[in-house]
Amino acid sequence: MNNEVPKSNLLEILRRRQGTYVSGEDLSRLLGVSRTAIWKQVRSLRREGYEIDAQPRLGYCLLSVPDAFYPDEVLTGLKTSWLGRSLYYYDEVGSTNQVAKELADAGAGEGTLVIAERQTSGRGRLGRSWVSPPRKGAWFSLVLRPRVLPAFAPQLTLLAAVAVQAAIRDCTGLALGIKWPNDLLARGRKICGILTEMKAEMDAVDYLVLGIGLNINLQVEDFPPELRDTASSLLLETGRQFVRVPLLQAILAKLEDAYTLWQEEGFAPIRRAWKEANVVLGQKVRLNSWGEIFEGEAVDIDETGALLIKEAGGRVLRFASGEVSLRW
Amino acid sequence: MNNEVPKSNLLEILRRRQGTYVSGEDLSRLLGVSRTAIWKQVRSLRREGYEIDAQPRLGYCLLSVPDAFYPDEVLTGLKTSWLGRSLYYYDEVGSTNQVAKELADAGAGEGTLVIAERQTSGRGRLGRSWVSPPRKGAWFSLVLRPRVLPAFAPQLTLLAAVAVQAAIRDCTGLALGIKWPNDLLARGRKICGILTEMKAEMDAVDYLVLGIGLNINLQVEDFPPELRDTASSLLLETGRQFVRVPLLQAILAKLEDAYTLWQEEGFAPIRRAWKEANVVLGQKVRLNSWGEIFEGEAVDIDETGALLIKEAGGRVLRFASGEVSLRW
Repeated sequence: MNNEVPKSNLLEILRRRQGTYVSGEDLSRLLGVSRTAIWKQVRSLRREGYEIDAQPRLGYCLLSVPDAFYPDEVLTGLKTSWLGRSLYYYDEVGSTNQVAKELADAGAGEGTLVIAERQTSGRGRLGRSWVSPPRKGAWFSLVLRPRVLPAFAPQLTLLAAVAVQAAIRDCTGLALGIKWPNDLLARGRKICGILTEMKAEMDAVDYLVLGIGLNINLQVEDFPPELRDTASSLLLETGRQFVRVPLLQAILAKLEDAYTLWQEEGFAPIRRAWKEANVVLGQKVRLNSWGEIFEGEAVDIDETGALLIKEAGGRVLRFASGEVSLRW
Repeated sequence: MNNEVPKSNLLEILRRRQGTYVSGEDLSRLLGVSRTAIWKQVRSLRREGYEIDAQPRLGYCLLSVPDAFYPDEVLTGLKTSWLGRSLYYYDEVGSTNQVAKELADAGAGEGTLVIAERQTSGRGRLGRSWVSPPRKGAWFSLVLRPRVLPAFAPQLTLLAAVAVQAAIRDCTGLALGIKWPNDLLARGRKICGILTEMKAEMDAVDYLVLGIGLNINLQVEDFPPELRDTASSLLLETGRQFVRVPLLQAILAKLEDAYTLWQEEGFAPIRRAWKEANVVLGQKVRLNSWGEIFEGEAVDIDETGALLIKEAGGRVLRFASGEVSLRW
């Protein structure tokens, strides 16, 4: 008899029988290991937060699973066919984008997911930091290798905003607004940020790392005082705690769908969806582009994803990047 | 820092850099664990048959992987989208069909793969035993849950024969003949057997377990004397040893394709493929049906997969099951 119990197999059986007892004898036979080995693995699962009841004559019963991004939890019920199926999980990490880039450099394949319960130096756009306290949000990065010219890569950032917005709407009922290019806001406060980084040659993208930070169950006191007026979380907006794993799974599924649509039909359908969910077009905005300030009405995004701003004098300017302020 | 190294993640990185050295420091950073933890996992991988060179200043280099049906090996490079992705691996088991039925009773999902390096009581059709020595063949079972009436389930057996025949042909160049319903023969000797078992209600299949035993690298002395004239292996037929994992992967891919085709277009394309690869139609055969012997020419299979035999007197008989002899 073997003495190592594959944790996934044990969990899968307990999960399928959740709410009923499976005898140690049955588990021992089904998994081809000793009852002692089963018991050892059950204890190890309990340490990870699985509630498993053990009764002398009945056996084992899975009462609840932890809301952690353990590979077994993320993969169970995941609806994607490739996105997130190769998964690197960390309890704590500096920045998931940083790790994802290193893994991509080491050859990690398309769809590789890097996820951490906590980031100690989570990063946002423009070198800003991203508050990432333990088990309160979803801090993760994806390695993508689209066969496109680098000039089209910004489309992927808008695509991600559209997919995450739709997943949150489906799971929570909350329709967040997209601020160009890819922040998700509720009442003007940032709930989700997306940081895309790219390694590319002149004529081809080597890889893109799509980093997503989603504030889920953060309380006011989880944010430093200076962010309390500009940042929020799903909990703060709805008054409800959310189980994080299904939210992540929904986001991955929407992302895979949108990415497939993008590869098959190009940017047009993504652009339409982005325009429906955005809170910038039609508004007076101020845009900071490399330190220079422009003001005017945001009138459209073009085929590459760039923002078009119409100045008071009627001149239309095109911005591929920049920082937009809505209220001024 | 975490102290458990996810074996799959470590292997994936070493695999992607196969032939080059990855430093312990890089692995430690990429996987978020200590260098001691990496070293412990490397030793454990070596015990499983992975050849990993370790050099003081260079780090680790994966030299070769074992030809074992470890989940990591089966899943790496597997082309299916659902078949075989939930995988139960055993070094030794009584019968993979038996375990698969128990897992299916416990709720195992469609596509679940049960695979063992060795069966101690492998079974064939009609209660016969199947010789299954360690690491010489592919002994595995699949849980399928097609939404069909039980009467159509035998089609799946023919489907499996067609898929396995095609995979072996692609991987080895050997075009085995299908003997009705689903044995694969070379020079009249059996190389692969398929045992389908079913749990069904009157109007619906609950699950099917498709058991496949494929003789790959068996030598003459691996067979008991009484089977040496009627059984063979890919090694005995070609003089070549085959790496087993890619063969299994090819079979799973062909099976998934054929199963999808069957669900989308019905039995017609499977029947055509079966007729092309069979060695029974047009031959004089003897059929043993529940102890009664019939003789005649095998003329066709019908829409359900049943064999039609034309007796000397011209009467055509239809058999849904039975044991066919070709030379008599």
